[in-house]
Amino acid sequence: MQLARVVGTVVATRKDEKMVGVPFLVLQDLDLENRPAGGSIIAADPIGAARDEVVLYSKGSSARQTEITRDRPNDAVICGIVDQWEVGGEEKYRKV
Amino acid sequence: MQLARVVGTVVATRKDEKMVGVPFLVLQDLDLENRPAGGSIIAADPIGAARDEVVLYSKGSSARQTEITRDRPNDAVICGIVDQWEVGGEEKYRKV
Amino acid sequence: MQLARVVGTVVATRKDEKMVGVPFLVLQDLDLENRPAGGSIIAADPIGAARDEVVLYSKGSSARQTEITRDRPNDAVICGIVDQWEVGGEEKYRKV
Amino acid sequence: MQLARVVGTVVATRKDEKMVGVPFLVLQDLDLENRPAGGSIIAADPIGAARDEVVLYSKGSSARQTEITRDRPNDAVICGIVDQWEVGGEEKYRKV
Amino acid sequence: MQLARVVGTVVATRKDEKMVGVPFLVLQDLDLENRPAGGSIIAADPIGAARDEVVLYSKGSSARQTEITRDRPNDAVICGIVDQWEVGGEEKYRKV
Repeated sequence: MQLARVVGTVVATRKDEKMVGVPFLVLQDLDLENRPAGGSIIAADPIGAARDEVVLYSKGSSARQTEITRDRPNDAVICGIVDQWEVGGEEKYRKV
Repeated sequence: MQLARVVGTVVATRKDEKMVGVPFLVLQDLDLENRPAGGSIIAADPIGAARDEVVLYSKGSSARQTEITRDRPNDAVICGIVDQWEVGGEEKYRKV
Repeated sequence: MQLARVVGTVVATRKDEKMVGVPFLVLQDLDLENRPAGGSIIAADPIGAARDEVVLYSKGSSARQTEITRDRPNDAVICGIVDQWEVGGEEKYRKV
Repeated sequence: MQLARVVGTVVATRKDEKMVGVPFLVLQDLDLENRPAGGSIIAADPIGAARDEVVLYSKGSSARQTEITRDRPNDAVICGIVDQWEVGGEEKYRKV
Repeated sequence: MQLARVVGTVVATRKDEKMVGVPFLVLQDLDLENRPAGGSIIAADPIGAARDEVVLYSKGSSARQTEITRDRPNDAVICGIVDQWEVGGEEKYRKV
């Protein structure tokens, strides 16, 4: 999984029929210091993450292992909302 | 999924038999600011995207989860045509 | 799929038993301008591509979706021989 | 598999239901010289690795092939704790 | 598949139970000119490759398609030992 921040939304009304009803969010990758890491991805959201929350997301076939993404042409999914992480005992992020 | 713009077409008459009849488009990756992001990909198109439209595409095994790509040696598929996206409340793209 | 040029051959007589009989070719990735793109890959060839031809290839589990690669430890496969592609209406390659 | 060091922990109480109970660790990729390699990943831990231990981890669908990750939206898993590695006969790391 | 040289060994006595008995080797990626390409990987070895041999390896789910890796959390596997390769008719490597 990678750490990422929810930074936006994307609207796509014309979709492959299997993607209808799957909510997407725009994610900005984070490095371990909680800085933007360069990459970004559009991920399905089975949890209801909010803007500015930090999430864990999975890619590839693992992104089809949730209720809302099973058998769909989806290759990224949010699998958790991060409360806190630390590296070397030093807290890098805590949800407020 | 990644954001990309439809920039061209590719013709390949001699194909693996399982790829016959699958339409392809040439995609240019976009970053969140709607600028070319360096990468490009040839993706199957189950929706009928048009040149200059912005699309979402999936990679890997997820690219085989549409009607036209099932069980085919295809590793990228367009899964939606983007109407609009925003980052931090700022609109980055709107389809005209 | 990615665009690539067939640039060479590789011989490997001692192989995992499931790879025996699968022909491989050496591919050089191309960018959309038909220039070498830096990467290279060894791909199975179910079509009979010739040196200097431009091909489309797939990676990952999709590379096991042809007759000759099914259930084999193969992660790249040629799925078409490119006749022509264009970007923005400008022809970038035409097979001679 | 890649070599990585266990450098931290991540807490995510609100998760996709299939991720509940799966323990995660923060990993820092290592190059063959035992130096940080730039990348990092959050991986499921079926073994009980400790901070500062060096591990091998797998990505993608292979990360769902352990007891605790089967059928879950998990794309990285620790599959071994490294005791020692050498390159060219020169020891690069030994667990103390 | 990628070309790589066998450069070392790794010992991991504490492993996920499904990885017990799978032999691993340390591989250094090669470019088409037979130079180190920057990347490295730890791969399962179903063939018995020796140090300094050049091999082909597969990644992802394809790395589970050998007898010794089936259903295991393994994401890289050696699938052939390279005897020779050439690019543009120029031999780049021949096993001695």
